[in-house]
Amino acid sequence: ICLATQDTEEIISIVTAIAPVFGGINLEDISAPRCFEIEARLQNLGIPVMHDDQHGTAVVALAGLINAAKVAKRKLSSLRIVIVGAGAAGSAIAKLVSPLVSDVISVDSRGIIYKTRPGLEVYKLNLARITNKKNLKGSMQDALVGADVVIGVSTAGILSGKDIALMAPRPIVFAMANPMPEIMPDEAKKAGAFIVATGRSDFSNQINNSLSFPGIFKGAMASKATRITDEMKLAAARALANLVKKPASDKIIPGPFDRGVVNAVSSAVSKIAKRRS
Amino acid sequence: ICLATQDTEEIISIVTAIAPVFGGINLEDISAPRCFEIEARLQNLGIPVMHDDQHGTAVVALAGLINAAKVAKRKLSSLRIVIVGAGAAGSAIAKLVSPLVSDVISVDSRGIIYKTRPGLEVYKLNLARITNKKNLKGSMQDALVGADVVIGVSTAGILSGKDIALMAPRPIVFAMANPMPEIMPDEAKKAGAFIVATGRSDFSNQINNSLSFPGIFKGAMASKATRITDEMKLAAARALANLVKKPASDKIIPGPFDRGVVNAVSSAVSKIAKRRS
Repeated sequence: ICLATQDTEEIISIVTAIAPVFGGINLEDISAPRCFEIEARLQNLGIPVMHDDQHGTAVVALAGLINAAKVAKRKLSSLRIVIVGAGAAGSAIAKLVSPLVSDVISVDSRGIIYKTRPGLEVYKLNLARITNKKNLKGSMQDALVGADVVIGVSTAGILSGKDIALMAPRPIVFAMANPMPEIMPDEAKKAGAFIVATGRSDFSNQINNSLSFPGIFKGAMASKATRITDEMKLAAARALANLVKKPASDKIIPGPFDRGVVNAVSSAVSKIAKRRS
Repeated sequence: ICLATQDTEEIISIVTAIAPVFGGINLEDISAPRCFEIEARLQNLGIPVMHDDQHGTAVVALAGLINAAKVAKRKLSSLRIVIVGAGAAGSAIAKLVSPLVSDVISVDSRGIIYKTRPGLEVYKLNLARITNKKNLKGSMQDALVGADVVIGVSTAGILSGKDIALMAPRPIVFAMANPMPEIMPDEAKKAGAFIVATGRSDFSNQINNSLSFPGIFKGAMASKATRITDEMKLAAARALANLVKKPASDKIIPGPFDRGVVNAVSSAVSKIAKRRS
């Protein structure tokens, strides 16, 4: 259903009103910060409600990260990650990933997000509370110095080969802006990137939220879950990662047409949902 | 889509907001008088919007009436009709049928509707303006005296054999309350009814709005009509009536599973729509 409105209150009241015929509601194409409030206030409808641009993307990014760490022979918990972009996807990735890794630095168009940065919107302040443990300040480049992973969910061409060269040895680069990534894979590799993923189907390692949301909803509905929890998202990411039998630098994530993706995700999600209920 | 609200303004704004993905909108289960305002205010969405409980029912009732007149060897234009019930269906039947017949008397729970009746709601006043030419007053029984047709769209058991006996010879009785009609067919026949129709599938002559709305929408959308007009409804009723090759007292209307119903209605509707555009 497309809604001919962009008003937060209207969207909430319309989705609430049409909910009775739906088993689950996948919100799409709502920008930050409205997406956070809208999703949060629709959690009591008694059916799973998830904003795919946030969590679908975050789950697939985490799945890719799990396998990228395996290929790089690094512990996930040791990685220092820079997320470029603090919109719907960037915020959700930071929230899902930060408890699992050494540190996450979120960067927006004004540079590193830190708690005391002047004029910080509420949702970026919330982000600052769970990221940037060392309270770093400065530019994107300052954040990238020595980082193990950069995850771009911002705009085309924002990363250069020079930026990648600032990172730790054998860096992992997820350049997920669509259709043009933050940096093209060949340029990233030339600058030393060990693993490169994008949102595009014409390169290897496509980080595509269609890998996650169908299985997440199937699993949530099969188990009659009334919400989609962080545990369910983690289970979905692990199930996706496990689908790749032999992770390699050009194969850290299943392809969109790989068999069994939906069922692997849904059964992992529904197992978690049943355990909790 | 079910809406979890009964508020007129909310329904209008929600339907307006979700309209972009729909080619046509069939409103269902909205009671009078809200249904009139809601339908009227949704006519500028650029797609056909129709309240089926009103017009779907009215079209099928008119189709049955056309054939009932044929079987009774009466001219449609000579018939005096009493409509028992002035809700969504009763109002729509009165509006659609009254220009075609000698007179229509609308009756509600307080008796005959006439222009100067105290405390008349606006929509009943509108009804009074197009019905009851002789400004009759009194009870349902007063209305029935000498009437050729009674159309019940009210509640179970409201008509007795005695009431039918008040009507003109060989009366036509449409007792469309569901699931229990205003009078059971055998009782109506015992009291002299020549033709009896109900809303039920277990008697002959089922007046069922599912005969009309699918074809009306198909025809309207095929011809890219932005509204469903009275002419289109008339064309739909005539097409439905014509589908019965040899009308008889127990066969005035096609059955719900008769072939070609949808296409006959839709091509009649789209022919009219194209002529007007």
